[in-house]
Amino acid sequence: MARPISKQLLRRPNPHSPLPQTHPLTTTFVSLDPSTTWPPPTITSLNPSAKVPILSITPPNSTTGNEGGEDGKNPIILTQSPAILEYLEETFPSRTPLLPRAPHEWQKRAKVRELVSLICTDIQPPTNQSCLLLINHLSTSLATSVLPESSSLAPFTPQNPSPGKLFAVQILTSGLAAYDALIAECAGKFSVGDEVTLADVCLVPAVLMAEGYGVDFNEERFARVRRVFEECMGMWEFREGSRREGEEKRHPCGLEQENPRVGSEERGAEE
Amino acid sequence: MARPISKQLLRRPNPHSPLPQTHPLTTTFVSLDPSTTWPPPTITSLNPSAKVPILSITPPNSTTGNEGGEDGKNPIILTQSPAILEYLEETFPSRTPLLPRAPHEWQKRAKVRELVSLICTDIQPPTNQSCLLLINHLSTSLATSVLPESSSLAPFTPQNPSPGKLFAVQILTSGLAAYDALIAECAGKFSVGDEVTLADVCLVPAVLMAEGYGVDFNEERFARVRRVFEECMGMWEFREGSRREGEEKRHPCGLEQENPRVGSEERGAEE
Repeated sequence: MARPISKQLLRRPNPHSPLPQTHPLTTTFVSLDPSTTWPPPTITSLNPSAKVPILSITPPNSTTGNEGGEDGKNPIILTQSPAILEYLEETFPSRTPLLPRAPHEWQKRAKVRELVSLICTDIQPPTNQSCLLLINHLSTSLATSVLPESSSLAPFTPQNPSPGKLFAVQILTSGLAAYDALIAECAGKFSVGDEVTLADVCLVPAVLMAEGYGVDFNEERFARVRRVFEECMGMWEFREGSRREGEEKRHPCGLEQENPRVGSEERGAEE
Repeated sequence: MARPISKQLLRRPNPHSPLPQTHPLTTTFVSLDPSTTWPPPTITSLNPSAKVPILSITPPNSTTGNEGGEDGKNPIILTQSPAILEYLEETFPSRTPLLPRAPHEWQKRAKVRELVSLICTDIQPPTNQSCLLLINHLSTSLATSVLPESSSLAPFTPQNPSPGKLFAVQILTSGLAAYDALIAECAGKFSVGDEVTLADVCLVPAVLMAEGYGVDFNEERFARVRRVFEECMGMWEFREGSRREGEEKRHPCGLEQENPRVGSEERGAEE
């Protein structure tokens, strides 16, 4: 169900920082395949919301002061993408901050957080697989209750999409069009200016999810989003973060797919 | 449609802060009554997402350096509750910070942000009125498509709740139960320790909304949430922030109400 897929070092820290130079990070892949039991017990024990991503932080060793020490302390569990992103950003400062840090950059910082919130609140949660499955369950219950006895509901297919899928497309379309309008005055090469920020980190998986649902990014209302997305995908960091893109595209979040759970929640794990 | 309801001073700043001692704040009430046109043009022009809250920041006067000056600069528009809360917190430091500030308080700070995210991402957006109306639209379309010609759907009532209302109750119940479990080890008088934080600021309107939907907070799984909520409501700041509570309780977000739009989005405006 959950297997470690890679051990790596967490971002190269600022060499002038007093923090240790390396921070071991182990990534664990959690299968969201609906044919397996969901949620797996390991997830429920770590997060009462039964959602990914989950960050487990080993407290610094109280004798050596180094992170990753083992002196009997329980790991600190942190859930929710925006909280994890803020934690990583302030704990592992790098030469290329993803959230502008200087006091005079308050306006850029606020803008980045606004865009992160738009993705993480307006777009991701309503299109989470558990929401879409619940919408389909409630809709089909209502329809079944009014069906004549001898009939049955037609199966949902790409040509006869479920209410959950129609809902997701509507939320993704309106949300990303609003993102596009919001960056009209602040976008440079990326969403806010010419440097990558947390806004771009959140935008890329949202665009990948929308593409999986067939949202047409050639429409004029997505022109800025499309340009920023392409700029991001020109960087190896984004390509590496999206290396399961091909697999996900074969199994988008559409409920009319063979393997619907591979999608939004899995991307959530990558955020 | 939108009328200023009060002019007040934005939080008493730290007297040792170099910032001006007072910051004028004008609050504008936006009616979410569905009998009026939604979104009002003033909202759409300020926020492409057509949602509240919206914070309009007058840039500091370039000659005097004081905020609130008038020297022809356009106001800076900031949307999304979490971004607005972070902006207010860092711009108007007070003696009682709502987000722990000291470097060694990283764990508390991460926990507060985790709880804010849980409310602002897992609970609020899917139960937003626009989501619930869309769910009802899609569900009734599906049901109507399979109805025998001579029949019609029974109207939704509190006894025959709509899919949107059932969805909201499910999201609120599971979300607030997860919040309760998440604060098991960090709660004191409030959600994180013995001081009010942004987590409590977000929790109170979520509990009010859930109460409006009839969620029973006497259940054991809400014991900590109920205790923290009662502690918050003992403070005049929370009571003042919830002064429209009575009116909202008469018109909760339930779609089977006379005035369904007075609810989550209006509370959003207060966050």
